[in-house]
Amino acid sequence: MNHYIGIDIGGTSVNVGVVDDTGVTLAKQSRPSVLNDGLEAGLRRVYDAVEQTVSESGIGWDRIQAIGAAAPGTMDIHTGVIFQPFNLPGWEDLPLRDRLADWFGKPTVLHNDANAAAYGEYWVGTGRHARSLMFWTLGTGIGGGIVIDGHLLTGAHSHGGECGHMIIQMDGGQRSPHGIHGALELYASAKALVRRCHEELDAGNKSLLAEWLKTGEELTPKLIAAAAEEGDQLADDLIMDTARYLAIGTINMMHTINPEMVVLGGAMTFGQNETELGRRFLAHLKGVVKAHAFPILAERTIIDYATLGSDAGFIGAAGCARAAVDSDVGVPVSIRS
Amino acid sequence: MNHYIGIDIGGTSVNVGVVDDTGVTLAKQSRPSVLNDGLEAGLRRVYDAVEQTVSESGIGWDRIQAIGAAAPGTMDIHTGVIFQPFNLPGWEDLPLRDRLADWFGKPTVLHNDANAAAYGEYWVGTGRHARSLMFWTLGTGIGGGIVIDGHLLTGAHSHGGECGHMIIQMDGGQRSPHGIHGALELYASAKALVRRCHEELDAGNKSLLAEWLKTGEELTPKLIAAAAEEGDQLADDLIMDTARYLAIGTINMMHTINPEMVVLGGAMTFGQNETELGRRFLAHLKGVVKAHAFPILAERTIIDYATLGSDAGFIGAAGCARAAVDSDVGVPVSIRS
Repeated sequence: MNHYIGIDIGGTSVNVGVVDDTGVTLAKQSRPSVLNDGLEAGLRRVYDAVEQTVSESGIGWDRIQAIGAAAPGTMDIHTGVIFQPFNLPGWEDLPLRDRLADWFGKPTVLHNDANAAAYGEYWVGTGRHARSLMFWTLGTGIGGGIVIDGHLLTGAHSHGGECGHMIIQMDGGQRSPHGIHGALELYASAKALVRRCHEELDAGNKSLLAEWLKTGEELTPKLIAAAAEEGDQLADDLIMDTARYLAIGTINMMHTINPEMVVLGGAMTFGQNETELGRRFLAHLKGVVKAHAFPILAERTIIDYATLGSDAGFIGAAGCARAAVDSDVGVPVSIRS
Repeated sequence: MNHYIGIDIGGTSVNVGVVDDTGVTLAKQSRPSVLNDGLEAGLRRVYDAVEQTVSESGIGWDRIQAIGAAAPGTMDIHTGVIFQPFNLPGWEDLPLRDRLADWFGKPTVLHNDANAAAYGEYWVGTGRHARSLMFWTLGTGIGGGIVIDGHLLTGAHSHGGECGHMIIQMDGGQRSPHGIHGALELYASAKALVRRCHEELDAGNKSLLAEWLKTGEELTPKLIAAAAEEGDQLADDLIMDTARYLAIGTINMMHTINPEMVVLGGAMTFGQNETELGRRFLAHLKGVVKAHAFPILAERTIIDYATLGSDAGFIGAAGCARAAVDSDVGVPVSIRS
């Protein structure tokens, strides 16, 4: 059987895994990615993590077929260069794919991290029975990824799946520092939830949170979720509004690419199906979809939480590497071999 | 060389053509589609149009490889059934693909009309040098079609490319009779342009149009365009607003599927590049895109008018038939053979 290395480089941690042809993870590791000691030291930590993970997997290097890397921010997938990766100072304009290919001597592909996670969920996660899916990664910002008939949509200019930047309120909407008005991310991200909560509290609206903040607590999505779980109406309303905004974005993807499945992943999913709040968040989102999407799509599109958690990125990156070297899987994307 | 029949069945006319392997149309015909004499008579007119077109093309039936049909409205592409075709009374729940396949004895595919037109523009129209494109068909309503890496996106439930139903103003937006709020179509369609114009005139705003309507003229996009061409500010503003709404929809497609090209087709394109108004309409749309899209996408995404006019549908349908029977082209979609 062939094996692949998946590397998911984020602002806080780098997640690495050795994954086999069926998507099973044989060994994995997570390490801090950035310690402000410069690019070369950061890359060295990635190399070390990979080497140790391969060693732990018991798979010889000769049985590793290819490497898939995932990174945040803007990039050029065809040349394998990352431009301005979010939270990776010093990594600007880095030919990350070729650095990895040169170091390990293996065919290597580079993808956007949210896209890689989408592919992971499609390959072996909650979307493993679907032919197409749309994936939301919900966190500080909102990322997305699209898989259609087994092909990861990378986009003509490596910007495929940047669905958090979809405009859902063109007039009178929230504005980003970059001047894009009314983008979904400005409503439904963790940052937006905290901002909206501050606005409500500043307006003098009653909430447990007002009391909690007096004790020096910081206002976070986690704190808002805790208040909602205590029955706080304001906190609950704000979280359900977040579900509504995401539902609008979801409807737009249903009406344009019409995926078989929509998957919600990332940190801001309120405990997913493990908590009452997480289940209610999903139910509220589905209710808005039901009320506003084409009936046939509202009825048939499967909407559910992701199942791979923070492993989705490296598993998906490994899957993209597999697709790039195995012509039977076939994803047309540049590879450095 | 192989040849294909393309059939584009619309509410007012049926357009038929014989198209060769390179996308060249050898013969074509346009006939009224619905004369209120029932389904069977309507189908018979389609059969007649096809038979006469093949006869005119000089291509023997043995050299016709397959048939592609395009129709409006909701459908199931995999079974080839149209459900509630817009403006085709009596054609509800019709197994159109199989009726055509049975009559002509050729492999036959069925597609949505806007999707077929998108494929036509991709194959031999303005998008012939692009690998991916998003197509707007602008008219009474707004349709769309998406081609990615040569594959027409049909969607998991045959609803791919219904981009006119994308929500661009979730709150305080226009509402459709079906309860979908703030959809692009409610702002940028011909119907919406006329409605907005009536609202402005009813509010007493000055315009040449107010005078013209007194003479018994009907308010149409054509009349509004004529007023704009005479220098009428209100008419011009309304048309440029239409460009702005379409730009929002275009940005959303750029940020999600990131096509190489965006193509504007359909009747409501104001004379396209042939008129000063058409050129200004496109320039205004591009300006809004430039101001609000990711800079790299604003710079690189080609936005232009369609070139096949009302032939796009049958040419695209023929192209889809070709893709379905020729495994080298390869579009995975159900075919009745």
